[in-house]
This record gives sequence, C-alpha cells and structure tokens, in this order.
Amino acid sequence: MVGGVSVGGGAPVRIQSMTTTHTSDTESTLAQIGRLAEAGCEIVRVAVRNEADARAIRAVKDGSSLPVVADIHFSAALAVLAVESGADKIRINPGNIGGEEQVKRVADCVRAHKIPVRVGANTGSIEREYLMRYGRSAAALVESALHGAALLEKYGVEDIVLSVKASSVPLTVAAYASLAEKTQYPLHVGVTEAGTHESGVVKSSVGIGALLLRGIGDTVRVSLTEDPVEEVYAAKRILRACGLEKDFVDVIACPTCGRCEWDSMRLAAEVERMAFGAKVRRTIAVMGCAVNGPGEAKDADLGIAGGRENCVIFKKGEIVRTVAREQAREQFLAEVRACIGEEE
Amino acid sequence: MVGGVSVGGGAPVRIQSMTTTHTSDTESTLAQIGRLAEAGCEIVRVAVRNEADARAIRAVKDGSSLPVVADIHFSAALAVLAVESGADKIRINPGNIGGEEQVKRVADCVRAHKIPVRVGANTGSIEREYLMRYGRSAAALVESALHGAALLEKYGVEDIVLSVKASSVPLTVAAYASLAEKTQYPLHVGVTEAGTHESGVVKSSVGIGALLLRGIGDTVRVSLTEDPVEEVYAAKRILRACGLEKDFVDVIACPTCGRCEWDSMRLAAEVERMAFGAKVRRTIAVMGCAVNGPGEAKDADLGIAGGRENCVIFKKGEIVRTVAREQAREQFLAEVRACIGEEE
Repeated sequence: MVGGVSVGGGAPVRIQSMTTTHTSDTESTLAQIGRLAEAGCEIVRVAVRNEADARAIRAVKDGSSLPVVADIHFSAALAVLAVESGADKIRINPGNIGGEEQVKRVADCVRAHKIPVRVGANTGSIEREYLMRYGRSAAALVESALHGAALLEKYGVEDIVLSVKASSVPLTVAAYASLAEKTQYPLHVGVTEAGTHESGVVKSSVGIGALLLRGIGDTVRVSLTEDPVEEVYAAKRILRACGLEKDFVDVIACPTCGRCEWDSMRLAAEVERMAFGAKVRRTIAVMGCAVNGPGEAKDADLGIAGGRENCVIFKKGEIVRTVAREQAREQFLAEVRACIGEEE
Repeated sequence: MVGGVSVGGGAPVRIQSMTTTHTSDTESTLAQIGRLAEAGCEIVRVAVRNEADARAIRAVKDGSSLPVVADIHFSAALAVLAVESGADKIRINPGNIGGEEQVKRVADCVRAHKIPVRVGANTGSIEREYLMRYGRSAAALVESALHGAALLEKYGVEDIVLSVKASSVPLTVAAYASLAEKTQYPLHVGVTEAGTHESGVVKSSVGIGALLLRGIGDTVRVSLTEDPVEEVYAAKRILRACGLEKDFVDVIACPTCGRCEWDSMRLAAEVERMAFGAKVRRTIAVMGCAVNGPGEAKDADLGIAGGRENCVIFKKGEIVRTVAREQAREQFLAEVRACIGEEE
C-alpha cells in the first residue's frame, strides 16, 4: 500500500509520475499534483534535495489527493526527515545512502512508520562491485537492486518495490525480465532518461509495453523531458494498448490511403479528445473509405466511413445511416456523445 | 527482393509506408514519395483502386527512388494490370480476389514478373471458415494468412511475405508470435488502424517493439491517421529504441524533476532535431542537474548538466568545461556539431 493505493499482488497496474517543481514551493507542487491527478495519475513522486523539501512534504501531503513518494539521493538524514514529514513511500538507493549504519537508520524509520521503500537501481548508480563483475549489464542492474533489497531486509524491511531502469530499451527489458524471475517484490517499471517527447514516448512504449505484455510490472512511470502531465497521458495510452485498462473508448482510425475521400484524420483526433477521459468500454472507428471501413471495423460499437459525397454511420458493422458529407461531422459527434453516455 | 531492397534473410528491418494520394495523380504521389524517401522510408506502397491507379504505377515507378508496392483489394484484373505496369511487389488477400481461378491468374503473372506477394490478413478480412472455427482470434488470423500463402504456393508462387495485423495490440503480438513459429516467410509487421498520432504512435511502438525485441519482423509499417512522413519518423524511432539501428545519435534527457535548475527540455529537443538524420553512433545527454547528470550519463559521448549559474559540459562522464548558463546553449550546440561530425 502506498497511502491508500495498492501496488502489486493482483492490483491494477498503477500510473505514477514525478513533479518538476521545487517541492518546498508547496503551492506550485500542489497545483501540479492536481493536474496530474486529473489526468489519471495515481501516485506522485517529489524530489527531496534539501531539508526544506523534506519538511514541505507535510504540507504537500495535506493538500494532495494522491499518495506522495519522496525521492532521495545520498542522505539518510533527508530520508528520515521525509518519512517523519509523512511521506507515503520513499525511493532510495541503499548503496549510496552512506553505509550500512545509515541504511539501518532509514530502515528503522520506515518500519516504525509502516511505509514501503523503492530500491531504485539504474545504470548510473550500479554498485561498484557489480559494475566490476558484470559491466554495465542487465546482471549488474539486477544484482545491484537485489543487494539493495537484501540490505533493507537485513534491518527488517519487507515492504519493498524494485526498479532497474536503463536508458537503453533492450537493456531495461532484459533487466526487468531477469529480475522478475528472481524476486516476488512488486516492480516499478520504466525507461530512464527516455528523452524528448517524440523519442521518449516511443522508448517508453516499447520498453514498458514489452514488459507489461509479458505480465511484468506493477506500477509504471513514463519519463519525459517535459510537463509530467504528458507522462500520465502516455502511461494511460500504454496501459490501454496493452489491454490493461478495460473501461475506455478505443478510437480506431485507418491510415488514410489513396482510397480516402475525406479528412478523416481531423475527425478521428476530435473524437479521441472528446472521449479520452470517458470510463466506458467502447470502440469507435473513423475510417477513410466506405470500401474497407464498415468491414474492417466490424467490431466497433460506432463508426463512420467517408465517401465522395456521403458518409455512412455504422454500428457493429451494420450501416445505420447515410449522411451528406457536410453534416457528417456534426451528426457523428452527436452519435459519439450518445455512445459514450454523455448528456447532450 | 522488393525492387533493389532485400527483405528478410538477415537483411536489416526495412521501413515502409503508404502514400495517401490518389495514385493516378502521379505528380502528388511522386512528391509524397520523395518526402518519404528523405525521411528514411525504404519501400513505399500505393493504393490501386481502379485502372487509372494501376496504369499510373508505370510513371510512379519511373519517378520513384523507392521500390513500389501495389495494394489491391478484390480484383485480380487490377493486380495483373499493376504488375504489368511494373509494381515491385503486390499486396493482396488471396481469399477475397474472386476465387481460385483468379488466384491462379495473379500467381501466373507474379511468377512471370518474378516479384514477391504479400498476403495481408487482418481482422477485417479473415476467411469466413477460420472466423467460424476460431472467432476473431490470433489463430484465425494466422490460419487465414497461411491459407492465403498455400493458395499461392499451389500455383507456384514462393516469394511471399506475410502479415497478420489487428487493431488490438495484444492480438497483433499474439498472432505474429504464433505465425513466426509456423512459417519461414519474411514477416511484414504492423498494428492496423492504430489511430490518431498520439495513441497510434504508442500502439505501434508497443506492438511492433514487442515483436522486434523478440526478433520477429523483417519490415515494419507504422499506421497513423496523418501525413505518412510521421509514420516513417515513428518507425525509425521504434527501430532505434529496439537497438536495430546502430548509427544514429541517441539523445538522452532526464525527466526534469525538482532538482532541475534550467530549461533542459528545450535544449534536448533542439539537439534531437539537429541530430535526427546524422548517421553516426553517438550518445548525447542533456541533464537537468549537476547532482545526477554526469554520473547518470557516464556513457554519453557528450553531455551537459545544468546548474543554478553554471552548466558543466562532460564527455564520457568526465567534466571538460564549466560554462556560464547564458553561454551554455550556444557552446553546447557547437560541441554537438563537432560530435556528430558536422562542419561548422
């Protein structure tokens, strides 16, 4: 349990993100958390760089609708302060927190507060020992994470989440696949330093998607170098693509080819925006041509296919209406609203 | 071989796309093919809706730097005409081309012209027999594709590519994984009707990526409801994420967190655009903070990490220079140009 949100053990795969504000600027931090929650984020992480950030967690927690995870590097003192300020979970690397005595100090604290710890190994923080033995490899990441967990276990901590992120997608996937075979702990899955929007969405989709399709991963973080709300949207789209979110509106649209007689792209985008937040299971198709449209989208609850002069609106592969092209958009959007259960 | 481009048998995974023009409008078609080729497309497909399209293939071929694949539904006559007009490959569903006699007619023609055929099954065109037996499932897609191939084999065609696309990612991945176990033919991999840009890129990345990471797929098509040049960019990013393109510039950027002291997002995007087309193997890192930056990007050939007043430029984890924040962008971009081998 991270605050009130269950992770692992059959719970749905949870979406998390991280604020980009200074945590001590509680007003900005809470405003961003509000936007993240609205977009569908379920757990939020904040950076703890100093005492002010650690102390601010109290106010952030009070104002946040999401469980708050404190991200700490190097300092056991900050970890303890963050926990005492009410963090619902902390993320540390036991290997860089200042030695075993400091690990014990953090362990005692999280046990007393009954909160989980994520041991976050990544290619930048692999334990020297494993780096020497295995190089910058999946084995090094996995052994580093398991060693961190073992250190915490030694001091009685059992509520652990593991991650082994790399910026290389094949390395990330290989590391998690190996880790999943060696541990029962829930896994936090992500590709680190995934990059700018376009390449970052692709890298995260390939890496997180490949793992989720294999049943690996209990909570996901998409890392993008931009507004974290985009991370949440991308994460939602990945879960949906993997069939892990059932109640949403799947908008399918054919790649417009030479057969396409109208501007189906624009309408498809409009339908997707309209339906992104709806929590009902529907498939809506926006097809370029009446040749393949109704056939290729037989399963759609609702669909439209364009023609030179008229469009056909169909439901479950059956044409229900033919409309003039000029009225097509308006009439179809009304059908969409009815289909997703929105009052007009 | 599709024209001069090899597919399968150890060749690199080929990127293809499909024009959205009317093929008979050869001027527009060739203009789009030119843009696709420039973006990195290696094989282009055009829709053949009628005789004019089929005949236009001659002029399109003459003006195209890419091999041209003719996409045909329902009509053996159009398939034959497209081949006689010089198509480098055709895509058909033998099951909907008008019966076995028509399949023989097409088979005789492609054998005479020594060109390959893609048998493209998708959830909209599954043979009735398999739909009844297996439902709309991976098995139905696979059996439908193999049946199509068997029909062609019966009439002497051996140069075959197979595809089994669905708009559901898990169904697509399951179908290709099963097909790969049952056939030696090269596989054309894609998710069909993938949707609007944002969800389409995610669905294609998850589906195509999961398959490529398992070594499945010889040529890929990303289907997006927009300018097909975007399909090529997305395909390139997927190949890169899967480690299948070696000579390119990997721009890594950390998700900016509360530690970030400057606008690294903008610079990362700028570096990525600058380096997208460069065919050299480099890793360039744009990191938010000097705390984790140089360490987390140890492997980068070149990197920058921001600070409150100064940024550090580093190479292979070693700091080579500290620059004032105001000069950071300009000095770093000069380093980037040098790193990717561009003359200033």
